Amino acid sequence: MSHNTFGHLFRVTTWGESHGPALGALVDGCPPGLPLSEADIQPFLDRRRPGQSRFTTQRREPDQVRILSGTYEGRTTGTPISLLIENTDQRSKDYNQVAASFRPGHADLVYTQKYGLRDPRGGGRSSARETAARVAAGAIARIVLGPEITIRGALTQIGPHGIERARWDWSGVDDNPFFCPDRAMVPVWEGYLDTIRKAGSSVGAIVDVEATGLPAGWGAPLYGKLDAEIAAAMMSINAVKAVEIGAGFAAAALTGEQNADEILPGPQGSGLNKVEYASNHAGGILGGISTGQPVTLRFAVKPTSSILTPMRSITADGLPTTLATKGRHDPCVGIRAVPVGEAMLACVLADHKLRHRAQTGL
Amino acid sequence: MSHNTFGHLFRVTTWGESHGPALGALVDGCPPGLPLSEADIQPFLDRRRPGQSRFTTQRREPDQVRILSGTYEGRTTGTPISLLIENTDQRSKDYNQVAASFRPGHADLVYTQKYGLRDPRGGGRSSARETAARVAAGAIARIVLGPEITIRGALTQIGPHGIERARWDWSGVDDNPFFCPDRAMVPVWEGYLDTIRKAGSSVGAIVDVEATGLPAGWGAPLYGKLDAEIAAAMMSINAVKAVEIGAGFAAAALTGEQNADEILPGPQGSGLNKVEYASNHAGGILGGISTGQPVTLRFAVKPTSSILTPMRSITADGLPTTLATKGRHDPCVGIRAVPVGEAMLACVLADHKLRHRAQTGL
Amino acid sequence: MSHNTFGHLFRVTTWGESHGPALGALVDGCPPGLPLSEADIQPFLDRRRPGQSRFTTQRREPDQVRILSGTYEGRTTGTPISLLIENTDQRSKDYNQVAASFRPGHADLVYTQKYGLRDPRGGGRSSARETAARVAAGAIARIVLGPEITIRGALTQIGPHGIERARWDWSGVDDNPFFCPDRAMVPVWEGYLDTIRKAGSSVGAIVDVEATGLPAGWGAPLYGKLDAEIAAAMMSINAVKAVEIGAGFAAAALTGEQNADEILPGPQGSGLNKVEYASNHAGGILGGISTGQPVTLRFAVKPTSSILTPMRSITADGLPTTLATKGRHDPCVGIRAVPVGEAMLACVLADHKLRHRAQTGL
Amino acid sequence: MSHNTFGHLFRVTTWGESHGPALGALVDGCPPGLPLSEADIQPFLDRRRPGQSRFTTQRREPDQVRILSGTYEGRTTGTPISLLIENTDQRSKDYNQVAASFRPGHADLVYTQKYGLRDPRGGGRSSARETAARVAAGAIARIVLGPEITIRGALTQIGPHGIERARWDWSGVDDNPFFCPDRAMVPVWEGYLDTIRKAGSSVGAIVDVEATGLPAGWGAPLYGKLDAEIAAAMMSINAVKAVEIGAGFAAAALTGEQNADEILPGPQGSGLNKVEYASNHAGGILGGISTGQPVTLRFAVKPTSSILTPMRSITADGLPTTLATKGRHDPCVGIRAVPVGEAMLACVLADHKLRHRAQTGL
Repeated sequence: MSHNTFGHLFRVTTWGESHGPALGALVDGCPPGLPLSEADIQPFLDRRRPGQSRFTTQRREPDQVRILSGTYEGRTTGTPISLLIENTDQRSKDYNQVAASFRPGHADLVYTQKYGLRDPRGGGRSSARETAARVAAGAIARIVLGPEITIRGALTQIGPHGIERARWDWSGVDDNPFFCPDRAMVPVWEGYLDTIRKAGSSVGAIVDVEATGLPAGWGAPLYGKLDAEIAAAMMSINAVKAVEIGAGFAAAALTGEQNADEILPGPQGSGLNKVEYASNHAGGILGGISTGQPVTLRFAVKPTSSILTPMRSITADGLPTTLATKGRHDPCVGIRAVPVGEAMLACVLADHKLRHRAQTGL
Repeated sequence: MSHNTFGHLFRVTTWGESHGPALGALVDGCPPGLPLSEADIQPFLDRRRPGQSRFTTQRREPDQVRILSGTYEGRTTGTPISLLIENTDQRSKDYNQVAASFRPGHADLVYTQKYGLRDPRGGGRSSARETAARVAAGAIARIVLGPEITIRGALTQIGPHGIERARWDWSGVDDNPFFCPDRAMVPVWEGYLDTIRKAGSSVGAIVDVEATGLPAGWGAPLYGKLDAEIAAAMMSINAVKAVEIGAGFAAAALTGEQNADEILPGPQGSGLNKVEYASNHAGGILGGISTGQPVTLRFAVKPTSSILTPMRSITADGLPTTLATKGRHDPCVGIRAVPVGEAMLACVLADHKLRHRAQTGL
Repeated sequence: MSHNTFGHLFRVTTWGESHGPALGALVDGCPPGLPLSEADIQPFLDRRRPGQSRFTTQRREPDQVRILSGTYEGRTTGTPISLLIENTDQRSKDYNQVAASFRPGHADLVYTQKYGLRDPRGGGRSSARETAARVAAGAIARIVLGPEITIRGALTQIGPHGIERARWDWSGVDDNPFFCPDRAMVPVWEGYLDTIRKAGSSVGAIVDVEATGLPAGWGAPLYGKLDAEIAAAMMSINAVKAVEIGAGFAAAALTGEQNADEILPGPQGSGLNKVEYASNHAGGILGGISTGQPVTLRFAVKPTSSILTPMRSITADGLPTTLATKGRHDPCVGIRAVPVGEAMLACVLADHKLRHRAQTGL
Repeated sequence: MSHNTFGHLFRVTTWGESHGPALGALVDGCPPGLPLSEADIQPFLDRRRPGQSRFTTQRREPDQVRILSGTYEGRTTGTPISLLIENTDQRSKDYNQVAASFRPGHADLVYTQKYGLRDPRGGGRSSARETAARVAAGAIARIVLGPEITIRGALTQIGPHGIERARWDWSGVDDNPFFCPDRAMVPVWEGYLDTIRKAGSSVGAIVDVEATGLPAGWGAPLYGKLDAEIAAAMMSINAVKAVEIGAGFAAAALTGEQNADEILPGPQGSGLNKVEYASNHAGGILGGISTGQPVTLRFAVKPTSSILTPMRSITADGLPTTLATKGRHDPCVGIRAVPVGEAMLACVLADHKLRHRAQTGL
């Protein structure tokens, strides 16, 4: 049991605090012989990096990753891969007030209640900065999965403004600062988020992620279910409060006839491994096992807790106070959760690829 | 890594198929000295047992649990507790057709794709019958948690009919066949579900579960988060497709001000461990750690996939066919998911109680 | 983390007390499609069964195993395999005195110190009876390993009487009540052990186990080493106090030249996977990974602690007493450790076969 | 399951290759609030450091450890502690020949067989250099254990020359380059090892380690036994081929009367937790659980495989060759295994301290 490890065979352990000297991920169980260098990881970190638009925190970190072990001459060796990202823009003084009282919505108080102390610099371990390590590990997971499997995500709702799914266009996702797949929604979000940002407020969001190209058969009954581990992966991301797969909550209102994904024969001679389905309410997973259809999921990210409006809280001595959070923050932390959600899905799938191979030899 | 184990220190491994000779749970890591006999477990099994109203499957199983190890003179000894429930009403012949083709929405096809074979009798391992073992284990988890902690659940939506939360009354939950906390909704559901049942159809549902009385500090960053493991626990229940904690998906539409749970001092002299909150959008968990407020969650259960309406599918040879599922089934499997959700939450919390104790000595 | 589980991918959890209603093993992670019925397991249990000669305990148990889950029509399904062995010859009254004081050399006192209570009937969980569950699980592990791999053990020392290794003959091991590979030693042991037995005494022993036919490459640096896990497996057997692999302790006295296993090319064209070695001081394992040579190990079993000579001890109240253990006991518990050691080695290797496949696809 | 992790609740994952940029350990599960800085770790690294006498490898590494996470203002925070040690004296060119063929006794060939490639620089991951990370982690484990528990080791045999146990003197262990507890043996070893060293040969050794001050009750039946995990820990150290606890292999030759550790009442009024024993053949562990007596163990280290005498081997192409290993090596790698054995025992005990606390609250 490890508090800071994710995965069983493809195992990722992250470490590091927001304002310590560095943070990192240790990836154990990666198969040998895969091509891997920093250049395979950096683009994903760049995509998550803060300070790229006015809609994300103005903290500026180059987030340069170094591989300290586990490769030789550009290939993985099967030994643990240690990834290091130095923290360079720490400004600890911004956070001095944080030590004196507990920010509502943050983990400040529960860490203190649990551990008797905490690292107050930038939220310490509970900072969203930790997700850089996840994204780095996710880049390795993609290599394990290989080119057949595509994992991609998009932001589909900011505050009350949800996209129009009929306008979904994957090709536009990286052309706007929101990872928005609906071009028509971009200006709406810009206007709305400018208002939120200028008010020192924040707002929640919904992220969609999907994986295509994976075969039928990954996952396992009953506690190592693919969907159970996806749910844990997404809920482990900072500020995520809900996750659904396929039809999700909407399935509650459906009848069996409406929810059924009818099974159709695959191409002539393809046997049972290439069947088709008339729909995908299941989100690509039945009985905890992949069907071969796209794995589709959504998760909700709560609004950033750091806001300018003073909120009631207590001091380190338990006395009442009010607290307005200054410093640099994302008005909608959900935006940068898109590459993080992709990375976590990649890690779950890489793990299950190896687990499937262990049990079945396939 | 175990496919069939849940938990880290309070570990539950379930085994058994729907129509094998028996099923069971093996509970390892239970603290010693706790009072435990079959009489502590049976009431929870009775609550989940099928055949108690016309709205659940007519399979009749006494579901008598036997404790085969781990206790002596009515107390736990710290050694593994083996729980056995014999299957008595198996009627395997009902399921002979099942082997010849794959039921849409069931795990029939993916099991075959993964394992190359499957136990077709009643869905084998993927049958909801396995949840009896979870409920038995959950009864032990409640003893580990002790009387301070109350875990209870309710059905809050069937198909399109959601309860009125203002009418919530825990005292009525066990007085109707639905675990419905809104007495006014009971006749509506009865009428609606009779229609569904008579049509050989089925419908989805939403279950709410809460835990009260737990202290602040349980859980851990960042992958052993209390909420991440709750999400996995709920998503591991058959037919569950979504889970949310606290405000859940609704948090996406809120601003930081709306979503904030302001912190208030606790009773005079109670220090940091008895603080209060002005609201509970967090659902009792921040940063993966319990706040001491009630842990609140909801999950969606898809409609039972077994319906009388013929659906397109394929045969074991990959040829097209249509399939109408006869046999005994729940028109709304979500009803019996209520005690299962409670049991899973109890197991997660018992595990985290021990984990918290390990790391902090508290 | 589980106290009662062994293995990572091929996972065995045993449960049950000496004098409870039953004991068993739960095997999770077994690959699907393997032929398995009770008849594959029973012969190994029969080989370990007590009461087969005057040199083992006179407790008489049929030790009939039942498979309660995880198979269908004689094949494994990939779901957990639950094995049940009922206890039929319990005679709890023999053990009434045991509750009142603590037998030296047994786990009576430490269980009480740890758990605050214990099951005194026949040693409860710490009884060597638990090894029946290991042997049953080991029979499944052998099926996972397949016919290429042979695992066999022998008793090589009883008290001061060690075998002559030059006379080693595997074909005779099952022809005597000691699993002795040196026919000339059998009458010596018979005479010696009769003396021990009649004196109500006991004596230690050494067991050798080997596995042949496994490929190079199983195992992993650095904490999942094949030898580290073999050491844990053997040391987890009741009464085992030492384990060595290959040259073992003798390697301490050797020079690098003496200990070197020179590498020789394999058959023409066989490449790196069929190399040969001029010797096998390594016991088939280097750097935690199998070399393809036989895996060879030895372990020491202490004398049975239950002896007729009164020994000083304390009562449940902490007062001094003397204690002579009556009841039925093995004068040399090491004899029946032979099939147990084989079973544990089979389990370790089956686990590593799956782990190797997970990481490398081979 | 992790190949490179040791422990369950106090978890140590090491990473890094002999000649990569750095190596390290990631310690997860450390309780919060413990005093910890680099100064608590460095002395143990210095004790293990090579190049301190002519009897260890002349590689010169400062082995300076940095703590990158998990502490704040000199105290542990409960989050993962990342330890980094840079490699500064790498001389990769020394090892160019290594890539072309496989050194007998090393892991070169099995790594290649398993992974299809290897890092040939200094043995890569299988280098004894990795033990620096273990020693660093062990220093943290000692802090978890607290001052009541003392862990110390000594070298007790080099080649054929074993110490005289009657002359054992802990106070002299750090006064000689061998960690030898028998002053009279030091000149004998010096002369013997000079001969070995000058001949370019090497020799095996035996290390004794003990822990005193631990309470009764740590450990657990049956696969999480304290002795099983100690055996795995020691056997996971490079070049270790055997391990024994208490009387070890000698127990095989004893009768039950000789091996018995009689139990005596503790001081008046101390109850069951302060009992005494007339002897300690058990090595402080019964039934997998600590008795409160000293935990005593021994392990055998094979001779360093790198020797000047040419040995037969094969090339990377599978062709026969002979190989004499040049470069810097320990003539007796067992010497530096002393602090490593201590560190591993500290890690096992720290883990079991937390596990005991989890299950019993003590």
